[in-house]
Amino acid sequence: MTINETNLQFRLAARPVGMVKDSDWQQVSEPVREPADGEVVVKVLYLSLDPAMRGWMNEGKSYIAPVGIGEVMRAGGVGVVVASKSPEFAVGDYVQGGTGVQRYWVGPAGDKRHGFRKVDPKLAPLPTYLNTLGMPGMTAYFGLIESGQPKAGETVVVSGAAGAVGQTVGQVAKQLGCRVVGIAGGKDKCDFVVNQLGFDACIDYKGGSVKDGLKEHCPNGVDVYFDNVGGDILDTVLTRINLKARIVICGAISQYNNTTPVKGPANYLALLVNRARMEGIVVFDYADRYHLGIAALGRWMKEGKVKSKEDIVQGLEHFPQALNMLFEGKNFGKLVLQVAAE
Amino acid sequence: MTINETNLQFRLAARPVGMVKDSDWQQVSEPVREPADGEVVVKVLYLSLDPAMRGWMNEGKSYIAPVGIGEVMRAGGVGVVVASKSPEFAVGDYVQGGTGVQRYWVGPAGDKRHGFRKVDPKLAPLPTYLNTLGMPGMTAYFGLIESGQPKAGETVVVSGAAGAVGQTVGQVAKQLGCRVVGIAGGKDKCDFVVNQLGFDACIDYKGGSVKDGLKEHCPNGVDVYFDNVGGDILDTVLTRINLKARIVICGAISQYNNTTPVKGPANYLALLVNRARMEGIVVFDYADRYHLGIAALGRWMKEGKVKSKEDIVQGLEHFPQALNMLFEGKNFGKLVLQVAAE
Repeated sequence: MTINETNLQFRLAARPVGMVKDSDWQQVSEPVREPADGEVVVKVLYLSLDPAMRGWMNEGKSYIAPVGIGEVMRAGGVGVVVASKSPEFAVGDYVQGGTGVQRYWVGPAGDKRHGFRKVDPKLAPLPTYLNTLGMPGMTAYFGLIESGQPKAGETVVVSGAAGAVGQTVGQVAKQLGCRVVGIAGGKDKCDFVVNQLGFDACIDYKGGSVKDGLKEHCPNGVDVYFDNVGGDILDTVLTRINLKARIVICGAISQYNNTTPVKGPANYLALLVNRARMEGIVVFDYADRYHLGIAALGRWMKEGKVKSKEDIVQGLEHFPQALNMLFEGKNFGKLVLQVAAE
Repeated sequence: MTINETNLQFRLAARPVGMVKDSDWQQVSEPVREPADGEVVVKVLYLSLDPAMRGWMNEGKSYIAPVGIGEVMRAGGVGVVVASKSPEFAVGDYVQGGTGVQRYWVGPAGDKRHGFRKVDPKLAPLPTYLNTLGMPGMTAYFGLIESGQPKAGETVVVSGAAGAVGQTVGQVAKQLGCRVVGIAGGKDKCDFVVNQLGFDACIDYKGGSVKDGLKEHCPNGVDVYFDNVGGDILDTVLTRINLKARIVICGAISQYNNTTPVKGPANYLALLVNRARMEGIVVFDYADRYHLGIAALGRWMKEGKVKSKEDIVQGLEHFPQALNMLFEGKNFGKLVLQVAAE
């Protein structure tokens, strides 16, 4: 078995300060090595680009070790097995796992850190396995249900509404009988989540006041706020929460490239006044139940009740610019980098 | 029945900006009126001075209506019934309730807003009914147990450790088998909570670095943080919390007199990294179970396992200065104003 191909890797060259610069990356080309016994070679087709990746590039204690300088950048991907010396995977199997930002992944098939599992391209398009049926979908499904605990009739607000996690949060909340109000940047994104995904309303934070939007669209206050952005929007929503409200802290994309300290929520005493709760979530905590989330979301997708939108950028060489799109609010739907044709 | 006495009231004259000034109060003297049918006259003996009172003086939505301009300042007190036209209370009964900042309270015995109930001066000294067996004790007991949910062996940190709520939080946590570390201002307060109340350690935030203190005294991290102060101390504790930590937001005394916006917790993303929770509490939510809290704390006090410390200032005329002691960190134990001799 000879893999006569060249791998291209994006390795972390320096810890970024503020927005990631091209010079923070090192591109390395080298031949794809032969798999040893028990190993597979996965040709990467799609890579998931996520706000969390910015955090993995920083030093310091977090929920996962930082990517080391000189290491291949961590990323989830979908690919196809092109060589196998493992009984677990056969050539031609489509798999999802921690491929990293490169053209080929070579390693032990059962490597827990990378967690490869087979996916079925007939059940759903491959990019969906990086979105609704992947980490963002699991984050949305379990974060909303377990931490947000929405009840039918309650009002759920979600920021980053057109993004990977936000789109699924809102659609799941609709399935649970909630009033759903999104917050997103731009009329196109707002129209999309209302007209295509069935949100009850969406507030365009670039086009007007979030405070006024919340007053208009959440006449009964906010029971659950699923926060992907932090910053001023979190502070504004805090002024409208109800008694016993639940705030799910999933991310803070507005703060990830700060070179000044993170802006803490100045209105956090609204938690006291309203006996409300703010809780952080990390998707890995639900790993032993992903199959349940995938089953529920897969069923809703099949029934047309939950839709999936990806924003697919072509070409591994555009990885640095594509990643920064997330922090400029330029992606529309789950951002996916296509590395090779299916 | 003639009450030949003069009442002295402190009424709110203006909404304070920053620290409360003498000119924010209006002192009014007038004869004590006769009780009508169903009413009682309570002679106030002790008044509870609490950080929350500062919040009641501000306009705006909160967990309780603000005190109106021209109204007697709201306060809890202990007094003795000196005249009664109600079958509920007899002359000589000692009672606890919402007396307001004045020498005499006259009103319907069963008035829900003021919630008078009899207390037994033989079971505990009267000021105790404004401390461990009163609102601060109930806040500590239910806030810690219901929101903090400490388990034996866990580390509980409490700020304002020598204050009314803090002293009871720490002692209850010790009864539950926790390691208890206080944060207080000054060596005297720290020595007191360690040597008299049995805390495992106490960090003097005026005498050194809270961060270093937490490293030294919480080698296994922080599982529960009961926050009475907010500001920098909250932010520092957030850097030391454990996975699934619970942060109880009871108050933010460092922020109540701000003329600039409240300082939000810049490190709130520690909640995400640690899948931790921050929840606000208000004591009134536990009103239907106060009797259970009083029974538990009363038993521990009788057994010598929980102690009660009050800082008693003499004289209603010193109310404005006494209230400000809270915000200057000058009180040592629960601050009580003695209005009349027992």
